[in-house]
Amino acid sequence: MSSAAHVGIVGGGQLARMTIMAALPLGIAVTVLDPDPACPAAAAGATVLCGDANDLDALTALAERVDVVTFDHERVPLEHLRVLERSGFIVAPGSSAAELAFDKAAARRCLGALGYPIPEHVVADDATAITTFAAHVGWPIVLKAGRGGYDGRGVAVVHSPAEADEIARAWGPGLVAEAFVPFDGELAVIVARRASGQRISYAPVGTQQRHGMCVEVVHPAPVAEAVQHRARYVAEALADDIGLVGVMAVELFVTGDQLTVNEVATRPHNTGHHTIEACVTSQFEQHLRAILDWPLGSAEARSPAAVMRNVVGSTGAPDPVCRVRDALGAGPQAHIHLYGKTPRPGRKLGHVTALAETVDEARHWADVAVGALTSPGAPASGRRPDARTADRGSNGRAR
Amino acid sequence: MSSAAHVGIVGGGQLARMTIMAALPLGIAVTVLDPDPACPAAAAGATVLCGDANDLDALTALAERVDVVTFDHERVPLEHLRVLERSGFIVAPGSSAAELAFDKAAARRCLGALGYPIPEHVVADDATAITTFAAHVGWPIVLKAGRGGYDGRGVAVVHSPAEADEIARAWGPGLVAEAFVPFDGELAVIVARRASGQRISYAPVGTQQRHGMCVEVVHPAPVAEAVQHRARYVAEALADDIGLVGVMAVELFVTGDQLTVNEVATRPHNTGHHTIEACVTSQFEQHLRAILDWPLGSAEARSPAAVMRNVVGSTGAPDPVCRVRDALGAGPQAHIHLYGKTPRPGRKLGHVTALAETVDEARHWADVAVGALTSPGAPASGRRPDARTADRGSNGRAR
Repeated sequence: MSSAAHVGIVGGGQLARMTIMAALPLGIAVTVLDPDPACPAAAAGATVLCGDANDLDALTALAERVDVVTFDHERVPLEHLRVLERSGFIVAPGSSAAELAFDKAAARRCLGALGYPIPEHVVADDATAITTFAAHVGWPIVLKAGRGGYDGRGVAVVHSPAEADEIARAWGPGLVAEAFVPFDGELAVIVARRASGQRISYAPVGTQQRHGMCVEVVHPAPVAEAVQHRARYVAEALADDIGLVGVMAVELFVTGDQLTVNEVATRPHNTGHHTIEACVTSQFEQHLRAILDWPLGSAEARSPAAVMRNVVGSTGAPDPVCRVRDALGAGPQAHIHLYGKTPRPGRKLGHVTALAETVDEARHWADVAVGALTSPGAPASGRRPDARTADRGSNGRAR
Repeated sequence: MSSAAHVGIVGGGQLARMTIMAALPLGIAVTVLDPDPACPAAAAGATVLCGDANDLDALTALAERVDVVTFDHERVPLEHLRVLERSGFIVAPGSSAAELAFDKAAARRCLGALGYPIPEHVVADDATAITTFAAHVGWPIVLKAGRGGYDGRGVAVVHSPAEADEIARAWGPGLVAEAFVPFDGELAVIVARRASGQRISYAPVGTQQRHGMCVEVVHPAPVAEAVQHRARYVAEALADDIGLVGVMAVELFVTGDQLTVNEVATRPHNTGHHTIEACVTSQFEQHLRAILDWPLGSAEARSPAAVMRNVVGSTGAPDPVCRVRDALGAGPQAHIHLYGKTPRPGRKLGHVTALAETVDEARHWADVAVGALTSPGAPASGRRPDARTADRGSNGRAR
């Protein structure tokens, strides 16, 4: 008899943590590779293999223990993935699909070659090349670091040659310079595909970014149905074209009724967190099913409307774990997801999803919950049941 | 600033495991007391304090680490709980509420004194007392061990003095002998109450038992709405009467339009597992919120129909963890929950919940999934993605 499935995840952040929570009920064992034995995934019961994603020996040690290797982040050398694949290990998504997310210049080349709508762009090594490009498309332009960017790090809107020079020195070479797309809104589509070809997409969501970090995800997306269909078609076609195995998020600009592909992430993504409560199958369970080549689940919505907001650390803000009671009091139906991370300004510490009959109502409850979790002024949560109000059955007395 | 909440659970079985999965996103730390460091709760990330629930020192060590002590099972000496309470530790449910679940004779006394409808009964120490009682109410009768019964262990339908004698010797003294209630069906109501008095109940479900173990839970319950209302009222009133803190399951017999209280469990319960997917707030999250005196969540249903079935070990059956792929293939929308337990005949290894528009449809999909997980004849699940069908991006080769 075959034994239980075992998945290896490179990185033990919140995506790994939520993937593990989906793995546990399905009997799937998970080992994560992370330098920190107390990474967010550890608290969810993952086995942690301590090591760095840049270390081929560590990656090999992970691959040797598991049935399939997947990713919590993109900061993994593609050449290492290719070595693992040549050694016969299964990596999902495979290196050529992952390249789309890990290497922005390669992604633009690939998307362009396949005929997907992308911004005008150039790969530039210095300020001169950038300025020449900007003279052609007009300022401002968008600069993206070739690798390793996330949550706004590695993406900048640049208005002058001086700014361009500064960033080229800090991030270059191999920058991608793009024409700024004057968009009306942004969409994201989560799509899953398994090795045997089965493929399924979730309804597009509307997203709001601030300083490059996703701050709000809205279901249903506030765009015409025809645009939604087209967005979904783009994501599905791309999944097939690159031979995706796993879950992918495709972020798109909407300008009028035109779509432009902005970013692609070949893993569960911040714009899919709402699927935990708002869809039949969460993106995390779907990713596991896809990389194990198991039958995919339904991506259907389970709620007329949903709003997801991130819980982000800021100077002077409380640790949100001390505010959960208040947040549940302010909005008892919000679904709170904290990641077990030490608060730091600008760090994603968790997210909240509110379901409702309408987007306005869901947004209200998500805002209330996030406000209670993060406002410096809110009262601190009681740490424990108040002994004075303890039930008459417990004889509770304060220690 | 106050720190995160910390809950202690006596016992690290599947209820503790599912409670931990609800605790993690809320930032609640959980420590379980269990003799087995590899208990089901451990894999979900609990800290395991190795020790026995009968050992007051171990219980005290648990209580000293946490804000509130709660339970995965009833095999805990009530006198130990009273000692903890006298020492000022918070125990939820408190000992007087827990007595209703932990001590069947006390439960009958209490329910009778409060005026709840219960079967005619007597506390008996030997076969003579039992036979005298049976002569009064008629055979068969139901015998229940005073303490420590679960999943049909400690409950027997007895048809003769000889059988009664055998059981009295094995389980006595302090047996509860009850008149057999000729019921048309069984209901269960999950109710939650927090120390400050807030209380909320879930819609009753219909339950099917076999050999004393719950085999099927059906939402909505197949009884008239008036009966459902009454069942809910009984559970809510009882929660108030006993000063419940936490979640309680009240199991009732339905005979015509009459209700009789059969069993009470003062913890998350097998008849509430469907709440994970079928309700806004799962019984596990609700229990945590209740014992921490946090605002309770909505108990509203999120699906027109749901059927929960247990996955139970049997001789010759496969380990269900090796059949998850098959089960998802047979019924891709079933929600599978395995508990990480070594298979043994008669052991609960997991459960499956199927949601649908109708009970018949949900039952069909739950049956299909449970069949695939447990049938000796089904094909073994592939352990890993089939390299021959791996995506063209991965270059996957079998190792």
